[in-house]
Amino acid sequence: MSEAEDSHVFNIDKSNFSGWFSEILKTADLVDLRYDVKGFVVYRPWLMRMAKELYSSWEKELESRGHDPTLFPVVIPEENFEREKDHVEGFSPEVFWVTRAGDSDLEERLALRPTSEAAFYTLYSLWIRSHSDLPLKLYQSCAVYRYDTKATKPLIRGREFLWIEAHDVFETEDQALAQVESDIETTRAILEGLLGIPMLFFRRPAFDKFPGAVDTYAADALMPDGRAVQLPSTHNLGQGFAKSYGIIFEDAKGEKRIPHQTCYGPPISRSLAALISIHGDRKGLVLPFPIAPTQVVIVPIIYRGHREAVLEKCHELAEALKQAGLRATVDQSDRNPGMKFYYWEMKGVPVRAEIGPRDLESGAVTLVRRDTGEKTQVNFEKCLEAVRGMGMDIVDKLRERASEELHDHIAEADDMESLSDHLASRGGFVRIPFCSRDFDGEECAERIKELTDGEVRGTIFGDDQVPENLECVVCGEPATCFVMVARSY
Amino acid sequence: MSEAEDSHVFNIDKSNFSGWFSEILKTADLVDLRYDVKGFVVYRPWLMRMAKELYSSWEKELESRGHDPTLFPVVIPEENFEREKDHVEGFSPEVFWVTRAGDSDLEERLALRPTSEAAFYTLYSLWIRSHSDLPLKLYQSCAVYRYDTKATKPLIRGREFLWIEAHDVFETEDQALAQVESDIETTRAILEGLLGIPMLFFRRPAFDKFPGAVDTYAADALMPDGRAVQLPSTHNLGQGFAKSYGIIFEDAKGEKRIPHQTCYGPPISRSLAALISIHGDRKGLVLPFPIAPTQVVIVPIIYRGHREAVLEKCHELAEALKQAGLRATVDQSDRNPGMKFYYWEMKGVPVRAEIGPRDLESGAVTLVRRDTGEKTQVNFEKCLEAVRGMGMDIVDKLRERASEELHDHIAEADDMESLSDHLASRGGFVRIPFCSRDFDGEECAERIKELTDGEVRGTIFGDDQVPENLECVVCGEPATCFVMVARSY
Repeated sequence: MSEAEDSHVFNIDKSNFSGWFSEILKTADLVDLRYDVKGFVVYRPWLMRMAKELYSSWEKELESRGHDPTLFPVVIPEENFEREKDHVEGFSPEVFWVTRAGDSDLEERLALRPTSEAAFYTLYSLWIRSHSDLPLKLYQSCAVYRYDTKATKPLIRGREFLWIEAHDVFETEDQALAQVESDIETTRAILEGLLGIPMLFFRRPAFDKFPGAVDTYAADALMPDGRAVQLPSTHNLGQGFAKSYGIIFEDAKGEKRIPHQTCYGPPISRSLAALISIHGDRKGLVLPFPIAPTQVVIVPIIYRGHREAVLEKCHELAEALKQAGLRATVDQSDRNPGMKFYYWEMKGVPVRAEIGPRDLESGAVTLVRRDTGEKTQVNFEKCLEAVRGMGMDIVDKLRERASEELHDHIAEADDMESLSDHLASRGGFVRIPFCSRDFDGEECAERIKELTDGEVRGTIFGDDQVPENLECVVCGEPATCFVMVARSY
Repeated sequence: MSEAEDSHVFNIDKSNFSGWFSEILKTADLVDLRYDVKGFVVYRPWLMRMAKELYSSWEKELESRGHDPTLFPVVIPEENFEREKDHVEGFSPEVFWVTRAGDSDLEERLALRPTSEAAFYTLYSLWIRSHSDLPLKLYQSCAVYRYDTKATKPLIRGREFLWIEAHDVFETEDQALAQVESDIETTRAILEGLLGIPMLFFRRPAFDKFPGAVDTYAADALMPDGRAVQLPSTHNLGQGFAKSYGIIFEDAKGEKRIPHQTCYGPPISRSLAALISIHGDRKGLVLPFPIAPTQVVIVPIIYRGHREAVLEKCHELAEALKQAGLRATVDQSDRNPGMKFYYWEMKGVPVRAEIGPRDLESGAVTLVRRDTGEKTQVNFEKCLEAVRGMGMDIVDKLRERASEELHDHIAEADDMESLSDHLASRGGFVRIPFCSRDFDGEECAERIKELTDGEVRGTIFGDDQVPENLECVVCGEPATCFVMVARSY
């Protein structure tokens, strides 16, 4: 085995998750961390193709739910940025500022967008005049910039990250709340449906909500080291931003009213990190079929005298798969078949097809699943159908496996010791009785953080159960709700 | 006609191009210029959909020619930016600088990318080791930032604009020059093929080339006011950047060599501006079929008692068109059919389908072309085929018309007076004998600019004709080549 070949073999147990994650980013050529600015990474083609697929799927889903695309500038004038008090307080410490251009100082410094409420809503106040302008539902796909002072981690916590942001305006609060539910469905369709990532949906505590929002709802997935990672969040903004930015509409009766707003932020970078981490295994990436840059790799098994015939059949299969809209490729490199298997397994390609002289005779193709390693012989003519079925089944199985893992990491505790033990030994989510229904229990949450390194993630969306005769695990006051605690990214 | 309806009627002669352009941007809801930062505009949905289509077509074409997608950070450390001397001199006056984050000054200030050579090539020096790493052909789709001090004009000259940049590295100069030709073919496929925008391809004079390049090749289109607008440019970078950034590879014989580079920059914003300007007419936008956000608008012609049947047929048609992958919509608004016609004509939708009670009886649909206004009755069953044919024919006719216009605006002159007259009376491109084959005639070019406001755009790509017994129109020295002069954006 030459050195170059050896470098494509991946064999790291995921129980050392942090090491596994760093290595797979490098070995699979996903990101390059050697760019000279902390928290900024380079997306390499294999990852960028996934990012593009994910963007496109999410955009389609948003459009099918009445959103239109737009694009706002990357810079926000400081004055506009400062109109909503809580918002600016929350984000100011994290803003990158453009202060100079060419050889001159700018008259007013410009924020690199950390999020775009201040950009969108300045123009929403011009666009919205009457109830016939509502609902207004726009999204943009872009990168945002946050000078996060915590330790950065590629794709999970960066100073530049890719996301979509949707900004919606409604006549009534009911419509806004319905949009929150619609956003949750969108999240499910993409992350659970397409990528097989199961999540828990939370209403976040008041002290952890989006600056300026009435309520923040967010989905957490479980990473292999037992930590929670926040995926999309959706915010009920109430009327606060509308008041600050002067967004007013005339209702059907001719009266001036203040609309209700929501915003939704599906993270592309983080979803890719979750995807890589949750499904990957000792051999490398395991990619869900819908997002894999190459869905089927065809490996010719060549024996002397059969080269041309085997290659011809391989290309015939690739063509048939491509015609049907699948992403297929023939690996015609010089490496031997064994090395090709290792390489494409490491890259996470969901289905491998092998064609050798014996398959030519029997008119068959050998299909191998990346997730289970299972081999199937199928008739050449049935190959497309078999690959499609396998593709769907792979997503289902990945989701199932991840879902078991998630539910296996949900526990209950009703005192601090048992909470602490759970978090230290197994990680995951621990449900505890908590003192405050209205989430003003920030002191108790801080105490939990101090003692266990766990964070109060909020109540499960729709979990209205009221604890009976239980006490808050921290202060001992009567518990009024159940919250989940987890260590997190 | 109510005021709201009236605002959708567009009726401006394009002979006042500047007024026409400003008005159509507003009336068709393409961009909003009221964002509070000079040179930064908001892309509204109708335009953003076109931008997305254009991006996707261009990306596909680049990928079919061996390019892979990547994404580099928006910021470039000043030190990396400064490694190529000509490059930094050319771009420094236009750079936006990020100097602060939160409450602190950054240790090193960061350039908002005005173009990404300095970002890509820093990592190319790490990625490229051997001839087996070549060719390396990557592109990214992104916005770039230039503090242009000339008057900004939305989509044509902005401080933030959308583009693609492809950065390619080759073993040999021949491969690099072949890439230049491939980039020209890509440009033709998209701008001429898809959008029907005819262009002239130039080798730019030395004093107008990309900072740091050996040679710049660029395509100019003709705007309705007779001015040239530069569309994609492709640059033969030679080995200069490779030397500055330390990009070295080992060839098949084991010798260290310096590779040859090219880069290519298709502008999305400007191509959209050209598209809008060149094809639009007195009634508004005229969109080529492949890029139109709505390709077919179906207008129900409703008479009492036939409402349900007509609407049902309209939706049946819309469904059939959508199933076939076309973008179709039924206009079910309250406006009367006449107002709908005006509105969708202003928006540039290429094909209108009308269905009324009479059409129901005869089983026919009336199709109306936006470009010619021509009406055709087609059988309901033949509608899809007819729409497709019409779509292709519209692009062909738009291209033909624009091509006639372009060629009608190419003239020859062999003295300054006649050059000046041509530019002042008709605009367009004027071919003149010029003193310097090697384009070091900057003084003569400056004199032309002073006297006529025209710019030397370079020699037509492949025009190797050597003037016989002619003199440079400026200095009177023997002419060594023909160049084109035009006023430009």
